[in-house]
Amino acid sequence: MPTFQSVRGMRDLLPEEAETLNHVIAKARETAELYGYKEVITPVVEPYELLSAKAGEEIRARMFTFKDLGNRTVALRPEFTSSIARLATTALKNEPKPLRTFSVGSVYRYDEPQRGRYREFCQSDFEVIGSNKPEADAEIILLTNSLMKATGLRNYAFKIGHIGVIRGILSQENVDDKLQNAVLQHMDKKEYDEAFNLIKSQKCRTTLQGLVELKSNKAFETVEKMKAHVKGYDEAAAAADNLLDILKLVIESGCEIQTVEPGFGRGLEYYTGMIFEAYIPELDIALGGGGRYDRLIEAFGGEPTPATGVAHGLDRIVLAMQMQNTAQKTKQNKRVVVIPVKEEWKGEALKISQMLREAGIPTEFEVMGRKMTKALESADRRQVDYAIIVGERELKEGAVVVRDLAKREQTVIKIGKLAEKIRS
Amino acid sequence: MPTFQSVRGMRDLLPEEAETLNHVIAKARETAELYGYKEVITPVVEPYELLSAKAGEEIRARMFTFKDLGNRTVALRPEFTSSIARLATTALKNEPKPLRTFSVGSVYRYDEPQRGRYREFCQSDFEVIGSNKPEADAEIILLTNSLMKATGLRNYAFKIGHIGVIRGILSQENVDDKLQNAVLQHMDKKEYDEAFNLIKSQKCRTTLQGLVELKSNKAFETVEKMKAHVKGYDEAAAAADNLLDILKLVIESGCEIQTVEPGFGRGLEYYTGMIFEAYIPELDIALGGGGRYDRLIEAFGGEPTPATGVAHGLDRIVLAMQMQNTAQKTKQNKRVVVIPVKEEWKGEALKISQMLREAGIPTEFEVMGRKMTKALESADRRQVDYAIIVGERELKEGAVVVRDLAKREQTVIKIGKLAEKIRS
Repeated sequence: MPTFQSVRGMRDLLPEEAETLNHVIAKARETAELYGYKEVITPVVEPYELLSAKAGEEIRARMFTFKDLGNRTVALRPEFTSSIARLATTALKNEPKPLRTFSVGSVYRYDEPQRGRYREFCQSDFEVIGSNKPEADAEIILLTNSLMKATGLRNYAFKIGHIGVIRGILSQENVDDKLQNAVLQHMDKKEYDEAFNLIKSQKCRTTLQGLVELKSNKAFETVEKMKAHVKGYDEAAAAADNLLDILKLVIESGCEIQTVEPGFGRGLEYYTGMIFEAYIPELDIALGGGGRYDRLIEAFGGEPTPATGVAHGLDRIVLAMQMQNTAQKTKQNKRVVVIPVKEEWKGEALKISQMLREAGIPTEFEVMGRKMTKALESADRRQVDYAIIVGERELKEGAVVVRDLAKREQTVIKIGKLAEKIRS
Repeated sequence: MPTFQSVRGMRDLLPEEAETLNHVIAKARETAELYGYKEVITPVVEPYELLSAKAGEEIRARMFTFKDLGNRTVALRPEFTSSIARLATTALKNEPKPLRTFSVGSVYRYDEPQRGRYREFCQSDFEVIGSNKPEADAEIILLTNSLMKATGLRNYAFKIGHIGVIRGILSQENVDDKLQNAVLQHMDKKEYDEAFNLIKSQKCRTTLQGLVELKSNKAFETVEKMKAHVKGYDEAAAAADNLLDILKLVIESGCEIQTVEPGFGRGLEYYTGMIFEAYIPELDIALGGGGRYDRLIEAFGGEPTPATGVAHGLDRIVLAMQMQNTAQKTKQNKRVVVIPVKEEWKGEALKISQMLREAGIPTEFEVMGRKMTKALESADRRQVDYAIIVGERELKEGAVVVRDLAKREQTVIKIGKLAEKIRS
């Protein structure tokens, strides 16, 4: 029989990579605690209706959708926000606001596999529900900055935009919501011609074109220009003011944001306000991104509730760490292997292993039944620190032989002193 | 619009429950480290062919199976062992033996939902690949014992059996593999009449019936009786000897096993040797279980390779902890909320929040823009420890007001001394 392969677009993380991903997950969880976000765990399988309601055509078409054995149309979540909005309108409806949630886990999209893009990938997700203030938007950018810093990444940068500016112009020019979504989908992919060809009004097209061209790395200056550019579009102007407030808070709190991209869109339909992404120069896919979505909770049957949030691509952060060589090994505990000299001492040897494990010492037991030389060679190759050799002569004295595999030295140690000796 | 509900059989874990599950996951990961198991992360979505190859009819029929957008027949994993066997025959083929792997994550089965049984549930999985020795089987029982102990569960117990004894009898009576699987499926559900009616030989039926009846809580005595009972069935007798070896190692290493159940089967087809389960008296579903599967790697296209492993139902362990009231709260860090007296001080207040977070102190920032009284009331209700009140008068002196919400006392503290004061 030939061997089995994994499904195209899915991948395995072998020990070293799994360890780095777990390290990044731990940093995301620490960030959640530092910023007061409570973790919730939602299912991977959700109703198709829920996941497709506000995801946007792009993501909707790439979901893993199927019928379960009860004939329900379900899908694997392509992101967390819909599930959190579901919770915010049901089980967490009566929680005090702001409701701050944290989630981490796998999400699924049927994209073309490429470097840093798999069909199953790991996200951490932070949502603040109940606040319409710029400080809430600032918070999700600041916590993204804290997470990036905690992973040791260098030269990461942010770009920021505001869907409210674009929608403000489009609404005032009587472009309906559906067409607005189509325009934004194209803008997200930088297909500006396709985007603007959808719009009848020449004035509107010119205004949007001018807006797109304001993109620059002088943050405050750009926002001032945006304000001037959208004069007469009241909602758009208010949105530009809101962007300025957010930028001020973020930059004053020590997080550098250079790029303001007024024509910036994002793939999800539900955004209404500030949107942002974090990236590094070495990788052309964003490491994280999010924004404000003030109408989603209401669309999901809840009270009108403003909200803002961010998701981080943790596998991509791992890839970025590898590219920048920042994936430092976590400090290893001393490792020990316990080997009985003869078959008949394996019971005693196993007891000693249990004693060491209970003392918190990572201990491998020789389960292959190999001769001493073979077992020691194997331990040596795998860079185990100590071999504990359990034989008759020393056992009679309540002792074992401890061999330091790096130094190639061995000493006889009383069993009662073993844990202490290895820790030192 | 009505609110959305989760899919039947799927569930949300709200913060308290999510915290307990994460605590148990952390204990499983610690156990893996203590016993020398390396973590690997495999996909949730695997080829249907892989997952169904050796799972057994029961599980095969309850998998979440569907076609992906590339028309591949895939399924959500119902367990980890098939994925690990896939790795052992591909990416990890040349790793030194024993190969010890640890995995943790969601698995999926379309079972009827009931207490402790969901269609998405969390397992930790430990596999030892490459050893045919009883010490490898002993190890997976001992590590299960360590995990149970680490969760604080009381009165948990093990039952143990040996598929090799049953298969040994059936093989010698010329019952073919397919029929053996059907017999074992029924025995797993304690449908002994249905099981034995499938067998032609009266002698074989009587031997198996007698074997089933040997079940008792006197472990060593039962295995001795098994050995006598299967006399003349050479493979079965060797299997009973193997069970005795395993039992001795486990019990001598301080893990009590009372129940030996010679007629014990388990739902998965791939078992060939010792099988066991852990449970508590309060809950009639097993908290974990596993056993030896010496032919799976070979069936998956690898070299003939003996293996043994165990999976633990972590949501069930959480449920068991709740039932036994052992789900102790983890020690909380001091929590702080930062509130600007007026809108104009929010930039300063946010900077102070960032400083505290960088010092490792969990800090919520007042993002609702509420008046001081409201913000303090909210903090009080949520049992936050300290409110940091940022106002003009104190800022001029480089200071803020720190209010101890439990004691209802407040003092003025220099900003530079703030982190230190809160930690003390």
